[in-house]
Amino acid sequence: MREFILYSRLGRTNSNFENLHDGGRLDIVHECIISSLFLSHGIRKNVVFHAVLNGPPSPPLHLEIEGEYLRDVRTDIHTWHKILKRVLSGRNHPGVSLCKTGFEALLRAKAEKSEIYVLEEGGKDIAETEISANPVFVLGDHVGLPRKAEIFALRYGMKISLGRIPYLAASCITILNYVLDLQSKTTK
Amino acid sequence: MREFILYSRLGRTNSNFENLHDGGRLDIVHECIISSLFLSHGIRKNVVFHAVLNGPPSPPLHLEIEGEYLRDVRTDIHTWHKILKRVLSGRNHPGVSLCKTGFEALLRAKAEKSEIYVLEEGGKDIAETEISANPVFVLGDHVGLPRKAEIFALRYGMKISLGRIPYLAASCITILNYVLDLQSKTTK
Repeated sequence: MREFILYSRLGRTNSNFENLHDGGRLDIVHECIISSLFLSHGIRKNVVFHAVLNGPPSPPLHLEIEGEYLRDVRTDIHTWHKILKRVLSGRNHPGVSLCKTGFEALLRAKAEKSEIYVLEEGGKDIAETEISANPVFVLGDHVGLPRKAEIFALRYGMKISLGRIPYLAASCITILNYVLDLQSKTTK
Repeated sequence: MREFILYSRLGRTNSNFENLHDGGRLDIVHECIISSLFLSHGIRKNVVFHAVLNGPPSPPLHLEIEGEYLRDVRTDIHTWHKILKRVLSGRNHPGVSLCKTGFEALLRAKAEKSEIYVLEEGGKDIAETEISANPVFVLGDHVGLPRKAEIFALRYGMKISLGRIPYLAASCITILNYVLDLQSKTTK
């Protein structure tokens, strides 16, 4: 299993938005969902994506998307605009769930069973890091992790880095999936 | 310099579309533009992205986006909906150009100065390939390269592969950029 946790500073916590960009950059959440879970014509069943939404009006909310159970989806933004609106207004979509958990409680729960890795430019080079079998990666949005969340995350995990180039959050996830794909290929 | 050429089978060749998805999957073109050219808070000035649009009503059209000259952009789909509408209706945007060149003529011109790599699952593993200094990568959209275009491209270039996992076109570009970033780091 692979898990990604996106800390979304401003992601809106109800369904009152015109478009995902104006919903506190839920467009970044959409991009990260696609890069976590989607292959060409397929879904990664071994991936769970989490976003902790910290925007108004009632933060925090924990959005969880499980590849194994995700159905009736495409990659485009219109599809995800509808799904996120739906879920944020209290309705259901297979594989997508929402609860009132905050970042710290989520991380504490994950740390009990999995190795936590916090993505930071100054961290240990991923090429020199042996990633455990069930990793959980923590990423910030376009503004980065808030200092307090970073300090908290590092109580449970280690900093890793993809190098000095500041990639988009969704690109980081694509690269992490690729690096893990290569690792699982060589261990087979 | 790095260049990416996306062969878009159905990308619409005028501005008559409601949204990018319905414009012959111009949403895939948008995703590939972002993964080619955008870093967190920055643009890759050493990248040129090309899409050859082969959809109705007047194919082919060659869309070219040069990182060095691109201005006034964000990553979100609304921004690119506007830019593509604008350019496809004959107006300008800095760094974005459009002309009547088709795939074969574009490839022939590129092959004069650059090494061409055609991305295919069955190609040579990129980890075992030394990529030249000014590579041009050719990719298909969600349906893949048409057979005729592939045969033509292979007259000028070699097949390379990212492995057996069928990544989305935009993910392939993100991974290629990452692999090239690593290579340029080790040669410095």
